[in-house]
Amino acid sequence: MEKIGFIGIGVMGKPMATNLVRKGFQLSIVSRHPEKEASLIEMGASVAASPQGLAGTSDVIILMLPDTKTVEQVLFGDDGVAFGVGTGSIVIDMSTISPEETIEFAERLATAGCAMLDAPVSGGERGAEQGTLGIMVGGPQDVFDRCRPIFEAMGKTITYTGLSGCGQKTKLVNQLVGATNLLGAVEGLRLARAAGLDAQTTLQAVSSGAASSWMLTNLGPKILQGDFAPGFSIRLQHKDMTLLKEWLAGMEGDFPAAGLVYALFHKAMAAGLSNQGNQGLINLWESRERSE
Amino acid sequence: MEKIGFIGIGVMGKPMATNLVRKGFQLSIVSRHPEKEASLIEMGASVAASPQGLAGTSDVIILMLPDTKTVEQVLFGDDGVAFGVGTGSIVIDMSTISPEETIEFAERLATAGCAMLDAPVSGGERGAEQGTLGIMVGGPQDVFDRCRPIFEAMGKTITYTGLSGCGQKTKLVNQLVGATNLLGAVEGLRLARAAGLDAQTTLQAVSSGAASSWMLTNLGPKILQGDFAPGFSIRLQHKDMTLLKEWLAGMEGDFPAAGLVYALFHKAMAAGLSNQGNQGLINLWESRERSE
Repeated sequence: MEKIGFIGIGVMGKPMATNLVRKGFQLSIVSRHPEKEASLIEMGASVAASPQGLAGTSDVIILMLPDTKTVEQVLFGDDGVAFGVGTGSIVIDMSTISPEETIEFAERLATAGCAMLDAPVSGGERGAEQGTLGIMVGGPQDVFDRCRPIFEAMGKTITYTGLSGCGQKTKLVNQLVGATNLLGAVEGLRLARAAGLDAQTTLQAVSSGAASSWMLTNLGPKILQGDFAPGFSIRLQHKDMTLLKEWLAGMEGDFPAAGLVYALFHKAMAAGLSNQGNQGLINLWESRERSE
Repeated sequence: MEKIGFIGIGVMGKPMATNLVRKGFQLSIVSRHPEKEASLIEMGASVAASPQGLAGTSDVIILMLPDTKTVEQVLFGDDGVAFGVGTGSIVIDMSTISPEETIEFAERLATAGCAMLDAPVSGGERGAEQGTLGIMVGGPQDVFDRCRPIFEAMGKTITYTGLSGCGQKTKLVNQLVGATNLLGAVEGLRLARAAGLDAQTTLQAVSSGAASSWMLTNLGPKILQGDFAPGFSIRLQHKDMTLLKEWLAGMEGDFPAAGLVYALFHKAMAAGLSNQGNQGLINLWESRERSE
């Protein structure tokens, strides 16, 4: 069984790493926040001094980090992973970052004989805890095949999407579709309220047919209860819409839904909603409408 | 059991009327297209000479007509329903028309002692055939209660939404949410293709999580197969988006998704796509992108 090094013991990374230990993988981590890592160490995870040190003693190095810059720093900065890997090592980057830079990182790691998979996830904190994440994987197919048991320890729907970068690209398609559905749910509920309809009744009627979506079914009730706690925060949704926007800038064609949802999440950040769940998008309008 | 008069034996109306006869309701129709009506007459439906005549011999008059103008004509034009109804008669308008004019029609019918329900449907031709329509009903609650067995003969999810016009308003909320989800599905698949991803794989990955929707699951595969036959046509979707736009014009607040989907379906009409299914929205871009 592969020895796994895990970097990024955060809201998502910690339950993912915990599931790996539970499934019997030998895990090491880089300690940054001892209080967050205590339970993993109690379960048997060892601690390395640096990403470089971790890479030297691991077959597979998993990253679950907040953004492109942090991934680059951890891979190629001082004491970075790239200086510890050997021939046959594998880096799996499960962060959601730029597809173009992913391809570049994979090329740089290849010069050290190290293969890389991009494997961003969907399903949020709950999916991470329950081991039911969706995982969209790009990179060499034989490396994917070898890593499948690792993915199966953390996720349910595991999709091989193609060469390096394709996992990130698929994730951004997913985020575009999800954000557009979220806008539909939010605008539908706003319209129901503005029209004096009973919003709960409208939600039930609309959820039962061709207008149904995960966003409407799962976030609609939270909106009606005034529950804006994050499953997935506006800050992270905005981060993904920014990655999408940057990626689209280099592409042919007109993507009006992407433009609209980017602009709205940008506004939501400026309105101070960053720490609300993405259903808090409705508060871009609601507070004003209610005070009118 | 109520004697029912049914006006509008079209793509939707015919299977709806057929289900009423099957459930034992005594049905009469106004003959306009004898070849379309033959099977109903064989099953025992009788034929009235005019909407007025039909109204005179029916307890409940159901309308399933293409637009607001046609409903007004059938109700209040020469030989219209309004001249045949008596005290205690009920008109059920199952067409999708203007909410404001619905309220006005109900008031005009009330002066003749006739109650009116607005009861637009979702679920398309297939839902009409299988008797599984979603039905959103507005009007007096006691009239709704009395008509429930009629709705149950044609639909599955039957929702009482409030006073006169609320059924139409709920339907337009439904159409806004559905059209926005459709745009998300279309733009996601366009992006997958533009990025060189395998569209089928992307569809599967995106359909499994928080970005899932009825539109993606049901129309995504049709798009990938190049099947643009209508379940629900672009012409009808555009008609509903126009009703939505006209309704929103009188309302406070900014509804950006509604504005965008209206503009796109307007473009799709101008591009000659009116008879395609609404998944043909993608052809606004695809033909150009593919020839580039």
